[in-house]
Amino acid sequence: MTVTLADVEAAAARLKGVAVETPLIESPALNERLGLRVLIKPETLQRVGAFKFRGAYNRLVQLTPDERRRGVVAFSSGNHAQGVALAARLLGIPALIVMPADAPAVKAEATKGYGAEVRFYDRLTESREKIAAEIAQERGATIVPAFDDPHIIAGQGTAGLELVRQAHALGASFDMVVSPTSGGGLTAGIATAVKALSPKTALWGVEPEGYDDTRASLEAGERRPMVPTRRTLCDALETPCPGELTFPILKAHLAGVAVISDAEAAAAVRYAFTTLKLVVEPGGAAALAALLAGKIEPPAGGTLGLVLSGGNVDPDLFARIVRGEI
Amino acid sequence: MTVTLADVEAAAARLKGVAVETPLIESPALNERLGLRVLIKPETLQRVGAFKFRGAYNRLVQLTPDERRRGVVAFSSGNHAQGVALAARLLGIPALIVMPADAPAVKAEATKGYGAEVRFYDRLTESREKIAAEIAQERGATIVPAFDDPHIIAGQGTAGLELVRQAHALGASFDMVVSPTSGGGLTAGIATAVKALSPKTALWGVEPEGYDDTRASLEAGERRPMVPTRRTLCDALETPCPGELTFPILKAHLAGVAVISDAEAAAAVRYAFTTLKLVVEPGGAAALAALLAGKIEPPAGGTLGLVLSGGNVDPDLFARIVRGEI
Repeated sequence: MTVTLADVEAAAARLKGVAVETPLIESPALNERLGLRVLIKPETLQRVGAFKFRGAYNRLVQLTPDERRRGVVAFSSGNHAQGVALAARLLGIPALIVMPADAPAVKAEATKGYGAEVRFYDRLTESREKIAAEIAQERGATIVPAFDDPHIIAGQGTAGLELVRQAHALGASFDMVVSPTSGGGLTAGIATAVKALSPKTALWGVEPEGYDDTRASLEAGERRPMVPTRRTLCDALETPCPGELTFPILKAHLAGVAVISDAEAAAAVRYAFTTLKLVVEPGGAAALAALLAGKIEPPAGGTLGLVLSGGNVDPDLFARIVRGEI
Repeated sequence: MTVTLADVEAAAARLKGVAVETPLIESPALNERLGLRVLIKPETLQRVGAFKFRGAYNRLVQLTPDERRRGVVAFSSGNHAQGVALAARLLGIPALIVMPADAPAVKAEATKGYGAEVRFYDRLTESREKIAAEIAQERGATIVPAFDDPHIIAGQGTAGLELVRQAHALGASFDMVVSPTSGGGLTAGIATAVKALSPKTALWGVEPEGYDDTRASLEAGERRPMVPTRRTLCDALETPCPGELTFPILKAHLAGVAVISDAEAAAAVRYAFTTLKLVVEPGGAAALAALLAGKIEPPAGGTLGLVLSGGNVDPDLFARIVRGEI
């Protein structure tokens, strides 16, 4: 099973008038700094503050009336939780989200704010998969995966479809597109759309140190789960393995994966604050971080698509980052 | 002497490919909160992080070769300074900016970063007008006013032109447009463009407490300078009197002026951070503040244009605001 451009286009039709068509933003200061034209896709401006709404809505809107009645269950540290919670509210579907007890407060509060039931678990002693499976079974509810689902991937891919079409409207086409990568739903979705419409575009993913499972898996040619030994500032990118569905797509299309440190992520959040005037969470700024830190060689004088994938960051953490304390 | 739509259109032609055509942003969450459709014009995403670049460039690009050689002088607490400094750099014009010693550090640093010479003055004991006039006379330089100049007003008006045309492209038209107001350059420019293209649109300005000179002047029917007795969080809006040129335009076109408190400005900055994911300085968030605080009754179910005029805020102040300490 794979995902095609037609699937992404069908998702775009379902999301029309529901998701935000996020604009392309151009910053002459960033262009000058990187020495090329950068067209920024700020998914921070998407509903729930992250691209996750696209995939969640595309999944939930295709549930049968009976499935909708029985509700949905998801597990997520934050952005997927909010995406599912809002999509469920808009569609009148009961939603329960299993979240780690140490998830950013802003993400947990927002998830509750959208009307979802939240069940916290201990990241060290409990299995969120097991908790979600038990609840789903009890209720006959549908589990909504965070990335490893064709409808989720197709939904996230609508960001890539917009990226290419909005650039086309400006008379531009991409030499390179760079996106943060966790389980690979966003990156695989974007790859599906971008490679179908613009085969010569080089696609890069970016992962945080300690969670560079996609980089390692691509190097090995097969999925290589890793055992997390530390946290990262990029809480949104803490997935230890690419998905069964996302990995073959990434393997087929990615030119490479760059790996960034916490300090580089923080520097990118500060740059977005100071120069771009955008609120971006550390994981959402991963692609920007890789470019600013010189971890990816951008096509000099060319055109680059830069995805800022999310902006849900606790005020206190953001304050510490912009003050340069992190 | 007044400013016409043709002047604004001519300014737009000069700015094409130089200024950013800032996008319209729509937030379903803000729409829901205010009960109408809000199309946000984020001039925070403009070059230098504020609309001021538009007017400054439109003024400077019309200097003669001889005037360009002799340079420009401006006085400003921050955003106009940056606008003039960057426009001067792009045009190869020497620039000196007279800034208060207590201007936000981020604004002073950015002004120097664009290559301008900065002369600090003491807000309490020195006259910036006198200092600027002396320097201008010595050097034969041109003084670039912050707002009371037809080319500056026409340049700022391009934000209004874009607003109307971008909304039109979405099939929308404005029942109301709300903008922060200081000396009135932005508000008068927007009024010129919006009222020419959409005469039925109601225009509102917003001023901070202690600097509601435009409100008082409109009430009196003539310019009423006020003596500032306090500072405001909205450092960008600390002008004690509308301009000779801006006031007649404001008088002809404004439906009213709302006045906001520091607490309301801070709440709007927090809302922009949390929900819109945009970095907005307190003065830049004044129009949003007035709407969130219910100081302006928006046209229920209608369409409203909301100008976020700048995003240049010191990290430490921003940190305190998002943490709720202000």
